[in-house]
Amino acid sequence: MCRLLGYIGYPIQLEQILCKPEHSLIVQSYQPKEMREALLNADGFGIGWYHPTADTEPYRYRNIQPIWSDLNLTPLSRYIESGRILAYVRSATPGQAVNLNNCQPFQSGKLMFIHNGYIQDFRETLYKPIRDRLTDTSYRSIEGNTDSEHLFALFKDSLQSQGIAGIMSALEQTLYTIDKIAHTMQVRVLANMIICDGKQIVASRYAVAGIPPSLYWLKNDKNFPESVIIASEPLFPGKWHLCPEQSIISVGEDCDIHIHPLTQTDHLSRPA
Amino acid sequence: MCRLLGYIGYPIQLEQILCKPEHSLIVQSYQPKEMREALLNADGFGIGWYHPTADTEPYRYRNIQPIWSDLNLTPLSRYIESGRILAYVRSATPGQAVNLNNCQPFQSGKLMFIHNGYIQDFRETLYKPIRDRLTDTSYRSIEGNTDSEHLFALFKDSLQSQGIAGIMSALEQTLYTIDKIAHTMQVRVLANMIICDGKQIVASRYAVAGIPPSLYWLKNDKNFPESVIIASEPLFPGKWHLCPEQSIISVGEDCDIHIHPLTQTDHLSRPA
Amino acid sequence: MCRLLGYIGYPIQLEQILCKPEHSLIVQSYQPKEMREALLNADGFGIGWYHPTADTEPYRYRNIQPIWSDLNLTPLSRYIESGRILAYVRSATPGQAVNLNNCQPFQSGKLMFIHNGYIQDFRETLYKPIRDRLTDTSYRSIEGNTDSEHLFALFKDSLQSQGIAGIMSALEQTLYTIDKIAHTMQVRVLANMIICDGKQIVASRYAVAGIPPSLYWLKNDKNFPESVIIASEPLFPGKWHLCPEQSIISVGEDCDIHIHPLTQTDHLSRPA
Amino acid sequence: MCRLLGYIGYPIQLEQILCKPEHSLIVQSYQPKEMREALLNADGFGIGWYHPTADTEPYRYRNIQPIWSDLNLTPLSRYIESGRILAYVRSATPGQAVNLNNCQPFQSGKLMFIHNGYIQDFRETLYKPIRDRLTDTSYRSIEGNTDSEHLFALFKDSLQSQGIAGIMSALEQTLYTIDKIAHTMQVRVLANMIICDGKQIVASRYAVAGIPPSLYWLKNDKNFPESVIIASEPLFPGKWHLCPEQSIISVGEDCDIHIHPLTQTDHLSRPA
Repeated sequence: MCRLLGYIGYPIQLEQILCKPEHSLIVQSYQPKEMREALLNADGFGIGWYHPTADTEPYRYRNIQPIWSDLNLTPLSRYIESGRILAYVRSATPGQAVNLNNCQPFQSGKLMFIHNGYIQDFRETLYKPIRDRLTDTSYRSIEGNTDSEHLFALFKDSLQSQGIAGIMSALEQTLYTIDKIAHTMQVRVLANMIICDGKQIVASRYAVAGIPPSLYWLKNDKNFPESVIIASEPLFPGKWHLCPEQSIISVGEDCDIHIHPLTQTDHLSRPA
Repeated sequence: MCRLLGYIGYPIQLEQILCKPEHSLIVQSYQPKEMREALLNADGFGIGWYHPTADTEPYRYRNIQPIWSDLNLTPLSRYIESGRILAYVRSATPGQAVNLNNCQPFQSGKLMFIHNGYIQDFRETLYKPIRDRLTDTSYRSIEGNTDSEHLFALFKDSLQSQGIAGIMSALEQTLYTIDKIAHTMQVRVLANMIICDGKQIVASRYAVAGIPPSLYWLKNDKNFPESVIIASEPLFPGKWHLCPEQSIISVGEDCDIHIHPLTQTDHLSRPA
Repeated sequence: MCRLLGYIGYPIQLEQILCKPEHSLIVQSYQPKEMREALLNADGFGIGWYHPTADTEPYRYRNIQPIWSDLNLTPLSRYIESGRILAYVRSATPGQAVNLNNCQPFQSGKLMFIHNGYIQDFRETLYKPIRDRLTDTSYRSIEGNTDSEHLFALFKDSLQSQGIAGIMSALEQTLYTIDKIAHTMQVRVLANMIICDGKQIVASRYAVAGIPPSLYWLKNDKNFPESVIIASEPLFPGKWHLCPEQSIISVGEDCDIHIHPLTQTDHLSRPA
Repeated sequence: MCRLLGYIGYPIQLEQILCKPEHSLIVQSYQPKEMREALLNADGFGIGWYHPTADTEPYRYRNIQPIWSDLNLTPLSRYIESGRILAYVRSATPGQAVNLNNCQPFQSGKLMFIHNGYIQDFRETLYKPIRDRLTDTSYRSIEGNTDSEHLFALFKDSLQSQGIAGIMSALEQTLYTIDKIAHTMQVRVLANMIICDGKQIVASRYAVAGIPPSLYWLKNDKNFPESVIIASEPLFPGKWHLCPEQSIISVGEDCDIHIHPLTQTDHLSRPA
């Protein structure tokens, strides 16, 4: 099921948000509070970040160990500084391999992507239908075998067909596509996703035939001024807002929050 | 803090006792019921077993991954058959390296050893006093940096000075030695240990300045006839007996249980 | 490029063939003699074996570490006894993930499979054409992203369409299929494979638009009586025979060798 | 035996020196040119670096995988920028555990340390004599079981007894101490070490009863202006100088090279 974290704002040391909060992702890996379908997030983790000043591709660090036992994380999170951060702790679907190819964030050029949720019985249900819809480029780009990476492939294709400006509408399009296929096959999908292109962060809280996992946002906290944090669970006491179910939240460089509701029942009439 | 398992009796497939019980060590790794000082046992694991017929040194398989995510375990535990089994899931002391040298069982010739507990502030307290008491051979044999391996080294020296027949008295001697040093330095020690030499299993439930972790035994269960199981937590419903605190329990090839109480307050008058 | 080993014959301890020979797979991992397109085989390894007496599914042990540094291998190869063994050390294609899903042997029911070679520019060439030919079951069964696993999927489909008796003809069929697609796309394929179903071992030495890697067989060596060994490189001095290029070699329970030449130029007229 | 790299000078991206040179440490891990007692350096690796502007403790990244297969290294070495870098690829002594505690650089406060060489039969020879000379603090600080970490502990004690200014004389003192013990026990020691405190880099090329491994330095290369590189093997064609045997080389912030010869035969008359 995983736990997610996104940060956009003033550049900070990674450890400020990843390690020091009292209910940090590290704590959430062994003692999450709001997970309904798993107990732990101890099947690896990953972080992604953008350079605080240079306009380059983002950077990733991933590991298949539990986040709490990685001795490299302390020095790295002390060294890394960024104003655009994604982080993720993994709870693997039982039987799925705990390997680096399945470890998020996924990346493509300047895009980074993390997903919390699952597609029910993925191999038997949407695996082939999704692959059949992909462009050759996206099809070939898939390196692991998670439902998450297939969602990212769909997203990339949606974005490609829309042009570079449309992260939010590409995510909306992706959700409508999934929704449509999933409804047809009566498959549950939980699809909380956070996507960053280095300029804005866009996140969904969405489910088909189920309740989406929790997702919160926090703006301009006293310890994190000029910033927005999006997270599966509040990292510390503060004015966290629960994102509405079936919606997309987007945050740009100005840190303004935009919430865009999605209407699940729209799926039959929308193009996919 | 770790969880322990020992089996002596009729040869069985390892999976019968390691994987299939409803509260197996695998379940205890992510959802233990009776641990007081940690939440998980996800910092590696190990199994040790003796050949069911040949008189050879025992075999070990250890891994630093959480036990639930090791894809090799299923085929190995289906293949391995033995009538003398030790198994262990680890909860590392925070900051201690999760590496194979620290992964139990420890082995020396035909002996195997697992430990559940800790020595308080080990590096600052008993680390050097224990090392200073070791024979050169035991001193050099230490490969990792856990308190557990140092307890095993003390045990080996006690056994060496007693001759091969005395596993139980060597364990008793080890506990009195530890008790004496720990009392002097006012250090808490939790020392549940299970030791096997291929013929008998001997276990302690013991603490200095603290409450020893739980330890149970079960004899001739209907699914495990002609056997004794010793475990930190019951693996399944059955006639489990809690081992008395401050005692040693030994089981030989006849599966008879012998319980030998240790008197903590004896430590001042006993030789060490 | 990898190095392969197959053994069929009298049950032996795994260490006899895996560890003790002077040019064992362990030595071949760091100092191979006959590899043309890589220097090492240090990107993981795997072993597969069948129970010496029981009629069960085979067993696997795989690891992403170099074979020489796996401390579990010594005790395991001392414990394991079998008369049907496959083993493999991996040289990953640069950029390909070193993870367990890509670690051979691959297994499906009673079948085990190892491959030495590659499909040129696999992702860009035969990846999708092969997937498009697979049955849904084989398509879904693919867990990693190697060319090797896709060859195994093709093989399983060929076998399925032929019935259980035909391992050798299924391998032949697989090679003709690959040959046909590869010729069309002008892609080099090196396809040395060893397959076992617990009763017989079948191996190919085959290439499309290239020279197949070396493959040897040895029968009834004085240290391995009543057996046949098939290996990428001779494990020790002895009467090793080089398998002919473009051929299949099969060995049954009687240890008789059958060599079946394949005619590369046949590919245009054969059904695929 | 390992391969070493030290860089002091103008801040550069780590990849410039670690990945891009034609005979980089990555190449030296699988194809070293000047190693006499091992074939590979594939038992893990580590990098250490200082912040380019802030006066903080240095940072480390270590891994037990071969350096060529670590997918995190590419983004990290693209992100990391520093003017003080140590890097190391490991060739473990056979039988020694490949675990993170044994992975260099070792660090203590602002000091970092890497070592290429070995102490002959370390466990049986200098292990206990070195430990017996250590202060309690250094004794307790040892986390792994390599000869290298024990050399670092000796160095720290020498430095402590000399005051903070004396890295070079502390290294000299360490070598004389080792030399004296090793001569007494007729033990071979190879002791190429590189030490950095964030301001200067000091390195030794030294052996007792043997030939020291190669060690080169290069100053103000056209691609690395205002810098000095010290390395076990030249990374690329250029004006590399072989450090004299039995000497210490030191480089400060001005990038001036100071070479200080050590007289092996002095050891009996020097204080230790």
